[in-house]
Amino acid sequence: MALGTDYARQDCSLARALEAIGERWTLLILRDCFFGVRRFTDLQDHLDISKAVLTQRLSTLVDTGLLEKSGGHKHGEYTLTEDAIALWPAMFALIKWGEQRWSPRGPRRIFSHAVCETDIATSGQCPTCGTIPPPGELQIRPGPGADPSVRSDPVSVALRSPRLLLQPLPVQR
Amino acid sequence: MALGTDYARQDCSLARALEAIGERWTLLILRDCFFGVRRFTDLQDHLDISKAVLTQRLSTLVDTGLLEKSGGHKHGEYTLTEDAIALWPAMFALIKWGEQRWSPRGPRRIFSHAVCETDIATSGQCPTCGTIPPPGELQIRPGPGADPSVRSDPVSVALRSPRLLLQPLPVQR
Repeated sequence: MALGTDYARQDCSLARALEAIGERWTLLILRDCFFGVRRFTDLQDHLDISKAVLTQRLSTLVDTGLLEKSGGHKHGEYTLTEDAIALWPAMFALIKWGEQRWSPRGPRRIFSHAVCETDIATSGQCPTCGTIPPPGELQIRPGPGADPSVRSDPVSVALRSPRLLLQPLPVQR
Repeated sequence: MALGTDYARQDCSLARALEAIGERWTLLILRDCFFGVRRFTDLQDHLDISKAVLTQRLSTLVDTGLLEKSGGHKHGEYTLTEDAIALWPAMFALIKWGEQRWSPRGPRRIFSHAVCETDIATSGQCPTCGTIPPPGELQIRPGPGADPSVRSDPVSVALRSPRLLLQPLPVQR
């Protein structure tokens, strides 16, 4: 079974994209970064992954230029680079696709265009202004499909209040 | 190292989406199906993966309702279900993101809205009619970033002529 992470002979941009973000957990880590999670401990609590896997994934994301690390070993913060922020349309489309298939009670999270105070469409467009807002202009809040009983870690709790994407999430411990 | 394929405790549509399509090779198989590849042999030639991995991935895709198999063991054809076709916006966004980062000579493949004969924008919109065309209305052709010397398998050769997505690809052997 092929367990490498490259697709060397595939002459396709999708293969290159998957080499960067196709490893297990990587997209969920980036999703959390869009939601404003920045610290190792917070990512670990919210994702329930081992320290070893999280360390490896974060290190790869920094190496490939998708995350930037600032601060020291203990209090370091990871933030998305411009290249990673450009991944938002794909991330949003995947979330919407997952929702259509596996969220019968409706979306778990609702995305709205903050300046227009309007929920954006599945296409990513704001029905009020007609633009496709960049992630920094989007607010998230829990939708009817959210089930607060599933998780009670501090990151999940912080995400129950409406939040602007990319803004640091105030995690209470 | 966690090598499972589920993200049981992640209450997020992205996690559900990745459970269905996050395994290595799965998105490249679905990409080929969008391009009109339908037969096991053609998928194998184009993707250079082992029979075992391809068999396992196809079987999972059929089980999760993303591919339909018709015909017998030897001459079976795999086609995308409606649920899989709904993945197109995410697929397109990932291809475009890969292109921006790793295709300095320009796109490897150009997507145009067939009825308008207009190349679509990175957002997926057709600049002529303003809609976001569904994949069945899109034509692909090689772009300036394509390098015909990389691959010479029959699927790669067939994809050098302009093709409508989702239409069966005539593979010459």
